[in-house]
Amino acid sequence: MSKKVVLAYSGGLDTSVCIPILKEEYGYDKVITVSVDVGQPRQEVLEAEQKAKKISDGHYTIDAREEFVKDYIFPLIKANGDYEGYVMGTSVARPLIARKVVEVAEKEGAVALAHGCTGKGNDQLRFEAVFRLTSLDVVAPMRDMNLTREWEIDYAKQHGIPVAVTSAKPWSIDENIWSRSIEGGKLEDPAFIPPEEIYQWTVSPEKAPEAQTVVIGFEKGVPVSLDGRNLGGVELIEQLNKIAGSHGVGRTDMIEDRVLGLKARENYEHPAATVLLTAHRDLEKLVLTRLELKFKKSVDEQWSELAYSGLVDEPLYQDLNAFIDKTQERVTGTVTLKLYKGSVTPLARTSPYALYSEDLVSFDTSSIDQKDAEGFAKYHGFQARLYKRVVEK
Amino acid sequence: MSKKVVLAYSGGLDTSVCIPILKEEYGYDKVITVSVDVGQPRQEVLEAEQKAKKISDGHYTIDAREEFVKDYIFPLIKANGDYEGYVMGTSVARPLIARKVVEVAEKEGAVALAHGCTGKGNDQLRFEAVFRLTSLDVVAPMRDMNLTREWEIDYAKQHGIPVAVTSAKPWSIDENIWSRSIEGGKLEDPAFIPPEEIYQWTVSPEKAPEAQTVVIGFEKGVPVSLDGRNLGGVELIEQLNKIAGSHGVGRTDMIEDRVLGLKARENYEHPAATVLLTAHRDLEKLVLTRLELKFKKSVDEQWSELAYSGLVDEPLYQDLNAFIDKTQERVTGTVTLKLYKGSVTPLARTSPYALYSEDLVSFDTSSIDQKDAEGFAKYHGFQARLYKRVVEK
Amino acid sequence: MSKKVVLAYSGGLDTSVCIPILKEEYGYDKVITVSVDVGQPRQEVLEAEQKAKKISDGHYTIDAREEFVKDYIFPLIKANGDYEGYVMGTSVARPLIARKVVEVAEKEGAVALAHGCTGKGNDQLRFEAVFRLTSLDVVAPMRDMNLTREWEIDYAKQHGIPVAVTSAKPWSIDENIWSRSIEGGKLEDPAFIPPEEIYQWTVSPEKAPEAQTVVIGFEKGVPVSLDGRNLGGVELIEQLNKIAGSHGVGRTDMIEDRVLGLKARENYEHPAATVLLTAHRDLEKLVLTRLELKFKKSVDEQWSELAYSGLVDEPLYQDLNAFIDKTQERVTGTVTLKLYKGSVTPLARTSPYALYSEDLVSFDTSSIDQKDAEGFAKYHGFQARLYKRVVEK
Amino acid sequence: MSKKVVLAYSGGLDTSVCIPILKEEYGYDKVITVSVDVGQPRQEVLEAEQKAKKISDGHYTIDAREEFVKDYIFPLIKANGDYEGYVMGTSVARPLIARKVVEVAEKEGAVALAHGCTGKGNDQLRFEAVFRLTSLDVVAPMRDMNLTREWEIDYAKQHGIPVAVTSAKPWSIDENIWSRSIEGGKLEDPAFIPPEEIYQWTVSPEKAPEAQTVVIGFEKGVPVSLDGRNLGGVELIEQLNKIAGSHGVGRTDMIEDRVLGLKARENYEHPAATVLLTAHRDLEKLVLTRLELKFKKSVDEQWSELAYSGLVDEPLYQDLNAFIDKTQERVTGTVTLKLYKGSVTPLARTSPYALYSEDLVSFDTSSIDQKDAEGFAKYHGFQARLYKRVVEK
Repeated sequence: MSKKVVLAYSGGLDTSVCIPILKEEYGYDKVITVSVDVGQPRQEVLEAEQKAKKISDGHYTIDAREEFVKDYIFPLIKANGDYEGYVMGTSVARPLIARKVVEVAEKEGAVALAHGCTGKGNDQLRFEAVFRLTSLDVVAPMRDMNLTREWEIDYAKQHGIPVAVTSAKPWSIDENIWSRSIEGGKLEDPAFIPPEEIYQWTVSPEKAPEAQTVVIGFEKGVPVSLDGRNLGGVELIEQLNKIAGSHGVGRTDMIEDRVLGLKARENYEHPAATVLLTAHRDLEKLVLTRLELKFKKSVDEQWSELAYSGLVDEPLYQDLNAFIDKTQERVTGTVTLKLYKGSVTPLARTSPYALYSEDLVSFDTSSIDQKDAEGFAKYHGFQARLYKRVVEK
Repeated sequence: MSKKVVLAYSGGLDTSVCIPILKEEYGYDKVITVSVDVGQPRQEVLEAEQKAKKISDGHYTIDAREEFVKDYIFPLIKANGDYEGYVMGTSVARPLIARKVVEVAEKEGAVALAHGCTGKGNDQLRFEAVFRLTSLDVVAPMRDMNLTREWEIDYAKQHGIPVAVTSAKPWSIDENIWSRSIEGGKLEDPAFIPPEEIYQWTVSPEKAPEAQTVVIGFEKGVPVSLDGRNLGGVELIEQLNKIAGSHGVGRTDMIEDRVLGLKARENYEHPAATVLLTAHRDLEKLVLTRLELKFKKSVDEQWSELAYSGLVDEPLYQDLNAFIDKTQERVTGTVTLKLYKGSVTPLARTSPYALYSEDLVSFDTSSIDQKDAEGFAKYHGFQARLYKRVVEK
Repeated sequence: MSKKVVLAYSGGLDTSVCIPILKEEYGYDKVITVSVDVGQPRQEVLEAEQKAKKISDGHYTIDAREEFVKDYIFPLIKANGDYEGYVMGTSVARPLIARKVVEVAEKEGAVALAHGCTGKGNDQLRFEAVFRLTSLDVVAPMRDMNLTREWEIDYAKQHGIPVAVTSAKPWSIDENIWSRSIEGGKLEDPAFIPPEEIYQWTVSPEKAPEAQTVVIGFEKGVPVSLDGRNLGGVELIEQLNKIAGSHGVGRTDMIEDRVLGLKARENYEHPAATVLLTAHRDLEKLVLTRLELKFKKSVDEQWSELAYSGLVDEPLYQDLNAFIDKTQERVTGTVTLKLYKGSVTPLARTSPYALYSEDLVSFDTSSIDQKDAEGFAKYHGFQARLYKRVVEK
Repeated sequence: MSKKVVLAYSGGLDTSVCIPILKEEYGYDKVITVSVDVGQPRQEVLEAEQKAKKISDGHYTIDAREEFVKDYIFPLIKANGDYEGYVMGTSVARPLIARKVVEVAEKEGAVALAHGCTGKGNDQLRFEAVFRLTSLDVVAPMRDMNLTREWEIDYAKQHGIPVAVTSAKPWSIDENIWSRSIEGGKLEDPAFIPPEEIYQWTVSPEKAPEAQTVVIGFEKGVPVSLDGRNLGGVELIEQLNKIAGSHGVGRTDMIEDRVLGLKARENYEHPAATVLLTAHRDLEKLVLTRLELKFKKSVDEQWSELAYSGLVDEPLYQDLNAFIDKTQERVTGTVTLKLYKGSVTPLARTSPYALYSEDLVSFDTSSIDQKDAEGFAKYHGFQARLYKRVVEK
């Protein structure tokens, strides 16, 4: 029986050289490659497929965009997903890709799972958090072998792997429908001001047109319409990426703490994400109680930490989702936002569940008059007064 | 002996009619007025003084701008002060004003303290949290009497109080060096899009000039320089308000939960605050550890809740400051930010305490190689695997 | 049409004198009394009923013990309910009593709701948090009138209300199936050592017999069996109160912060509660992951604060329950505890969902060897090392 | 120049065989051993010293008991140190031992640091969190070589290392002045009821004498007196261990989550710790405000997590201590507790900083009357009422 390994395959140099390496260095008979479409450029997916057909022993291209939006992005929106100010993108796609690789491995009767991540970043941890749920072997050739780019190019040529003629890219890119990350090279210096060329989804704010207003409709925490038109999740995000990107909205430049502990300078583009998260937070303030807003902040933060680390199989993840889904039952309504030269500003919001309205204000005044606040005021800071008396003695 | 009351005095209609009311309705012999300059328009302070000299039995104008910045704004910056996304301004000025009123009362041998707040908002609570630390009586005529504007104007005329001929303002304004708040009138409707005219410190982003870069220098968490020039706190904030305001930076439009529980739509302008808080947060990410950043978030949130409520005499407030000051020992460095048509973007940052640098990266690689991450990866999500095995049985 | 008020009635002097007061002072035509049986001594419920029949215009005795256990106590167990170390009893019963009063008011077409609490404690707030959800008037004669015991006795005699001949009790007692609280009198002095006589449910540990072992069975976080016998909630708690009480288990003596801010010295007895909460916490440690245990602590704490304050209609309460119920799906198993002279000690625990077992240990060792921990160790405290290098420079 | 390694030495079989292993397998010329006295049995320290003198190339015995109590135990008391209910002992001693090893290495000019921990537990992480702060090599032979006890005994005999004739101990013990831990063997089964023989510091509660009352005096959070006699920290803990141990007080039997993720069943004895922590918590409730108590809980929990993991060099640890020390300024007073057959019960407490006293109660009533609570009550649960109106529409 053949010893098969299934490899998460992007079509890039690293994962391409992994194919012969997995045979020559690790002794697998067959390498099955899997490319998962989570909204990266179509061209990239197609090129990966073509390349794989030449060099792997079987290839799967899996369109997981709908699933990605429904099962990974929508929960993120409901959780106001944010890690140290980072609009997570790569991190929420990795578990999905890993799960698809596992599915293929089960179908193919493979004995091992492989990824092409190095030992420096977060992605190895996210892939393996899913891979290691199975009893299959887990292989990470890039981490084991610590290869140089020159060695890889030579090796690729020797093994008939097409190598793009372009010179080494100055930065490392990762893209999916929700976010595009740019890192490495000169960007590693926190004091280096990033050049305009690193951005592809967003125009320079300086080149953005006049202001535009968009209206996002939400149902139970999930965006369902754009300017009054009902849209599926994938389409809504794609359209909003274009609109908001054309206004230069959705760039992040930050110092981020990786799971292993190293700090890294990261740059991101995520136009739709910025608009949707801004709108969602704004709507929550209209419908949730003060106590809900305050406690949900800690829930959202814990959710984000799990999501950032790729720990979506940790049972706490589902516990938190139960809390979040309960709160989202009332997060229905619309938010109007202005997009203008890099910034997004909420202008107005409505909801059938608004905890603020003229009707409610008049209701209050029927049972409470201003004088009642005096009683409240007398108890406000009460223990601080006891404290003062005690320490002054 | 005369029965004196000391009144926090703004010069407006409400606090002006309080003067005769405190005598006629509450029986005080003398009303001493106190206006505290916390950076509101100079004209306002002067007019209040002139008016007071005509109608009160003694007046104090106290320039507390330096103290406000040093003892209230700087701690706020160190704590990334933020209540539900609100850049606090009014809330941190109130305790200072109240403390000045108490100081005058002690000097004057007064028997009571008065403010002109109604029973609907937060300010009554903030004033009284300080007032009630003393054993003096606390009087709130506006809350007790629930007066209409018409009644007040009539009453003012009868008592020789000058009334501005302007018609009722469409919104209620509060200003200090750090923030300007606009509320009331049509703004109460969360779906009403605010007109440009409510803003005075910030130009419309559409009318802002080309992008400008500013460099903020921090020492131990406190801003000390602007574009390389060392400046005192008041001057730094005033200059930055002008610069950032001219770029349309620093507007907030939000639904806010008041202490008593009512939600309210609030609009704010705070150009310098937006720049300084953005820069401070960015610098913290460079110098604090991941664990510090995460835990400080909860400390900052608790600090902000106390500050918003005016509970600066609660002993917890000092406990939190002890934590914060310890973390700020290393928050020294510079942050470069771009101001452009309403948005502020950090571009670069440096610090002698940076936890990220090329030097550190090479240090790491001397003792840790990529293979070590495999061991880490095997323990990442470990309990989720136990869980899966258990629930699958 | 008659103006009816419905009064939460305990049969004591305070609520008894409320009946004529509500007519004479507040002008109601009819006073309907409601006594809710939440497990206080049967005799007390019967006496309240007999007394009410003489002096009120209609009386309801409602046996709510099953509902109390199922809808209030079981959620408390799942949440490890604990306020500053206090095993809540009174606080979780109040909302249920208040809801029963509201149900009677709706049935009777009453225009007002009344309780006999003073303005000093927590119970007024718990009653009114429920009462004020309706649009009926809320009346609190004891709070309004600030009466002395002597005045009340005189007034009772004049109105034909039977007054127990016993002298004033030295302490104030509140009882339900879950807890018995004793407060007031000399106990108010935190330095006063409480006499043995304040306790009725628990023997003095000195007088307890030899050690006894009990086994509690849980299903989804809820206790379902005692020593192997399946029991309904009411019966299980009643039996366990007797058993554990006979071993002197379940006394609390503490300083507690009331909602309004005053600290108070409180004494409690709650034998079954102590055993069940100890067992539940112990079982959770066996089945929940480390991350679940840690985060659930903060959820449990917020739950307890709402429950202590009587805010069970705050939507956050249901959000938290959604989280808790999700975690409890695996809290099934048994805990063996030893009861001995005042202490309860978990001895052993089992669960089909245990995250610890010999089987799991051997599973681990198949994929992880000791050497892997070295990689983990190299990253443990990683940022502390960066920090040290930076500050030493 | 000789290649020296410094080894943390307990005198047991594991660390003894490390000595020749470090030479034969790792190529070091000289092995310097260090035994740190943190209050384990004197006999153990002496035997380690005698043994070391025979087989190592230099030995240090360091009495660190005073330092341990002052710099590790007292901060723990102030932080109510508790990890998942575990009274930490081993975990807080490890960093001190590691630091002493590093000090010796610096003095001796060693090139490496070694410990005898395996790759399964927490102690390897705690040692290395300190060791890796230096640039010396870190060696862990037991983790690298995965040896069996039989192999070790043979190897020891061949190398002239005295081996105790006793058979393998059924459990693994670790002791210091604060705590004694027992684990391993049959105890690993969570359902195994531990036999009486595992305990040495505490008598069986069944064999304990009549109840005894002790009074603990605190100054700024630190215990300074026992029954009115001022005592140094070491002496106070030693005496209290004897007294409370004689009453069977201070046993813990629990399931604990180790840092790496494995759950483990652990048993502990810590009589003085139980009494001091109970007393300290009780005193805090008398003097800290409600807000301080609530927030300090989260600070204490984070402190405990760092301490459990041995991360005392993480800067957050010092930040947290700054908060804690600020709160402890008022934690001065006495607590009276009853020790009886395994349980400890606070009976009374006093403090000059008590936030509760008859004097304070009368102060309150001068400025606040019961009627004021009505105003407070009207705002209690206010948003829950808005919510109800909104969802009912």
